[in-house]
Amino acid sequence: MNKFTPDQLLYLAGLIDGDGSIIAQLVSRKDYTWEFQIRLTVQVTQLKKRRWFLEELQKEIGAGSVRDRDTVSDYILTETSNVYKFLKDLQPHLRLKQKQANLVLRIIEQLPSSKASKEIFLELCNVVDHVATLNDTKKRKYTAEIVAAKLKELKECVVPVETSEETNSGI
Amino acid sequence: MNKFTPDQLLYLAGLIDGDGSIIAQLVSRKDYTWEFQIRLTVQVTQLKKRRWFLEELQKEIGAGSVRDRDTVSDYILTETSNVYKFLKDLQPHLRLKQKQANLVLRIIEQLPSSKASKEIFLELCNVVDHVATLNDTKKRKYTAEIVAAKLKELKECVVPVETSEETNSGI
Repeated sequence: MNKFTPDQLLYLAGLIDGDGSIIAQLVSRKDYTWEFQIRLTVQVTQLKKRRWFLEELQKEIGAGSVRDRDTVSDYILTETSNVYKFLKDLQPHLRLKQKQANLVLRIIEQLPSSKASKEIFLELCNVVDHVATLNDTKKRKYTAEIVAAKLKELKECVVPVETSEETNSGI
Repeated sequence: MNKFTPDQLLYLAGLIDGDGSIIAQLVSRKDYTWEFQIRLTVQVTQLKKRRWFLEELQKEIGAGSVRDRDTVSDYILTETSNVYKFLKDLQPHLRLKQKQANLVLRIIEQLPSSKASKEIFLELCNVVDHVATLNDTKKRKYTAEIVAAKLKELKECVVPVETSEETNSGI
């Protein structure tokens, strides 16, 4: 990830306010502690014929990738530490998406402690919902509510194991 | 129209590159010299619920207006001298829409001389077409070709008058 001049940050803030998305998503991941990943993304979308613009953006930011999707291309920055550095620099200059940026920064700051605490994780899932609301996101596969229900199931699944341990110890 | 700081221009350039349009259009106007107006517009569109952002933009620019249309609101700057001043300041900072800005500036510079010359007017109509192509505009009511055809008709309509003058003078 590159260092940015104030001039670059001002232009990028305008661009992200206009054409960018600061996204928080819940993604099903069986190998994760709470079976869900909180994925944070900064994204800029353009028609495929302006892919060059996104490639220049990628070079300027010094991180992220450009991918094609139907008639458009997306610049995607999703590696958590890069999203954090980028939004931390960008945030003071944002006018429209400053709230989303601050919420995503808060999520990233609390991610490490959420690994040890289901309560903190569910709290962060609520912040994810908040970001989605600010983004006018319509279709969402997973919400904090769904994650909470799944985590409850997860707890219920653990119970028989504990019982069987007790049974074993009773032999 | 306000004066802008370099910081403001950088942000606005990013915003216009991302979410703005720099538009050139041909509009039928029977009372105009060539029966068409070349309308130049800088526009920023947002969902109606973010109309406040466009109103702030309007205050910051110190010109233009905000209008509602279906589910969205548009900030519209269309008074030619304001469009000129704004794009002249903005142009060095644009990355994606710099071509459109320069073409619109060129059109505005030549508008006065196009009033006395059909050839210059038709040339400017071609520049309008060029801007529309850069903007991926699909539906267009009038193109340079249509204007050229109309202006040819206009000339043909004038002919009988000249003939009748000749007839008169022949009496």
